[in-house]
Amino acid sequence: MISANQAAELPRVGVMIGDPCGVGPEVLLKSWASGRLQAVCQPVAIGSAAVLQQTAAQLGLRVPVRTVAAPEEVRGGADALEVLDSGALDPALVTPGRDNEACGRASAVWLDEADAFARAGRLQATVMAPISSVAMDMAGVLDRVVQAKPGESYLLLVSGPLRVAHLTDHVLLRDVSGLITAELIESAVHTLHEVLRRWGLAHPRIAVAGFNPHAKGPEEERMLPGIVRAQAAGLDVSGPISPDTVFRHCIEGRYDIVLAMYHDQGHIAIKTAAFAGNVAVVVGPPYPHVTVAHGTAYDIVGRGVADHSMLLNAILTAASLAAGRGFPALV
Amino acid sequence: MISANQAAELPRVGVMIGDPCGVGPEVLLKSWASGRLQAVCQPVAIGSAAVLQQTAAQLGLRVPVRTVAAPEEVRGGADALEVLDSGALDPALVTPGRDNEACGRASAVWLDEADAFARAGRLQATVMAPISSVAMDMAGVLDRVVQAKPGESYLLLVSGPLRVAHLTDHVLLRDVSGLITAELIESAVHTLHEVLRRWGLAHPRIAVAGFNPHAKGPEEERMLPGIVRAQAAGLDVSGPISPDTVFRHCIEGRYDIVLAMYHDQGHIAIKTAAFAGNVAVVVGPPYPHVTVAHGTAYDIVGRGVADHSMLLNAILTAASLAAGRGFPALV
Repeated sequence: MISANQAAELPRVGVMIGDPCGVGPEVLLKSWASGRLQAVCQPVAIGSAAVLQQTAAQLGLRVPVRTVAAPEEVRGGADALEVLDSGALDPALVTPGRDNEACGRASAVWLDEADAFARAGRLQATVMAPISSVAMDMAGVLDRVVQAKPGESYLLLVSGPLRVAHLTDHVLLRDVSGLITAELIESAVHTLHEVLRRWGLAHPRIAVAGFNPHAKGPEEERMLPGIVRAQAAGLDVSGPISPDTVFRHCIEGRYDIVLAMYHDQGHIAIKTAAFAGNVAVVVGPPYPHVTVAHGTAYDIVGRGVADHSMLLNAILTAASLAAGRGFPALV
Repeated sequence: MISANQAAELPRVGVMIGDPCGVGPEVLLKSWASGRLQAVCQPVAIGSAAVLQQTAAQLGLRVPVRTVAAPEEVRGGADALEVLDSGALDPALVTPGRDNEACGRASAVWLDEADAFARAGRLQATVMAPISSVAMDMAGVLDRVVQAKPGESYLLLVSGPLRVAHLTDHVLLRDVSGLITAELIESAVHTLHEVLRRWGLAHPRIAVAGFNPHAKGPEEERMLPGIVRAQAAGLDVSGPISPDTVFRHCIEGRYDIVLAMYHDQGHIAIKTAAFAGNVAVVVGPPYPHVTVAHGTAYDIVGRGVADHSMLLNAILTAASLAAGRGFPALV
């Protein structure tokens, strides 16, 4: 039992409901109904209250939905799922299981609202349920989804004990070599160190993956001065380490996180290891921004069979990081 | 109980004993002593009988060693480990736990003997216990170790249900893009198809991994005609498939093998998945050539603590492939 005073100290986590035509609203309702959220955060939905109410009614989920006008009004209790609804979407325009421009446009508005609240300190973390990049592209607002950008933000994937941040993301592999510099490595390592400390890891141990087989090549020579400078600044950073062993070492607990050089280096490790409970965290915004690893699942919308464990894990992770308690055990 | 007639039908597998200064002789003696080999093959060591006898005596392993003059003399029974010893090494020159040139030179002779016997059909498969690349380099004979060479031979790693052949091996990652052509993909796929059929997979299902994130880029466009031509020739080949999902699909049984584009694409998947019983098979020679994934382990030579499961798995795999019974369950 959480008392009112305790609840007020829990981080306020805004959950953007995802594209209303997908399974986002369903898995959010199910995550709330699990009863797991109230003990660790004050959750608040950001999106359409009508869509949540209609989804609950259609699927027979007993989740009362209550609109709040500002984050400060959120009570985080077990009586109702609270929603910040700015009226960005006419619920009559929702086309379940199919993309449409209005929902893409509303998704961008809700993402912007979540970001603005979090940057103002009115939310301590944000979570993004599955959006539709097709619908957002139709509305010309796909740029509002936080993208990884070397030097500014990095995608961090978590799968059980394996945590991987990516120096580069959707870049042609042949172009990655030219992006690797000592300065970028040094900057990324400092960013990871600071954010992991803020999230509750007192002494983050960072491993930098090499680029070439056995970490032997010109890119490793370019990396090395950046790693040496970070070590001289007191950071616990190792590398460049052979790409084919560094992820296994992380799984075995030798490091807290691996900095991968390119998309598939990290994604192959994460998806092949496949521990329960994958989440994705964007490192870069001044607050934890967590997303789910699955999409809108249009083929099963409205059938009540969507698995909510990934969104639940995303919210639990956002709450734990925002509270400075590190990465939680996932379900 | 295997009768004499049955034993004569089992494949004759030559096991090069590895560098005599390393753990190769020890793990070979232990593999033989496990009693697991006689049911599936006629094993014969290739190397120094004296080294095997001294190692058995030193470690208290009750393994009688008997020299045979030719592969045709091998009986494969449980009474003694048979050895083809051409006298390439003076056993007085062995320096346990330290590299030396004489042992490097002898390693090359034994590898050449194994290859010559197998090409002549006098052995049906060969296995290489851990050699020392340093010692072989000292003797100037490192080129005798079978190397992967695109268009000719490929390293195939096996870890539980995950099997990965590598189009390229120790190549700088930035240079891989330029090597990828439709012709090379088509040739590699045909090589894999033929060898897997010979090894006992009646209808091999081959997946070709893409090169870029989500398999979208110019390299995939270059690959595609090679895949289409192989499909038109009747091969069950799919791709290019997103590199971050194709290995998971193989683990789940959708494919028999993945053709990876570069060293770490496959090695990250294999080492992160880490099922029991890894082995490496060289695709290219006209017979199965299987190697172990570990090295000479100089630090534990002579202590009797070396784990023989990898060499045992290598021999069991060589025997099964040579007999056309596919990949065996590993220990």
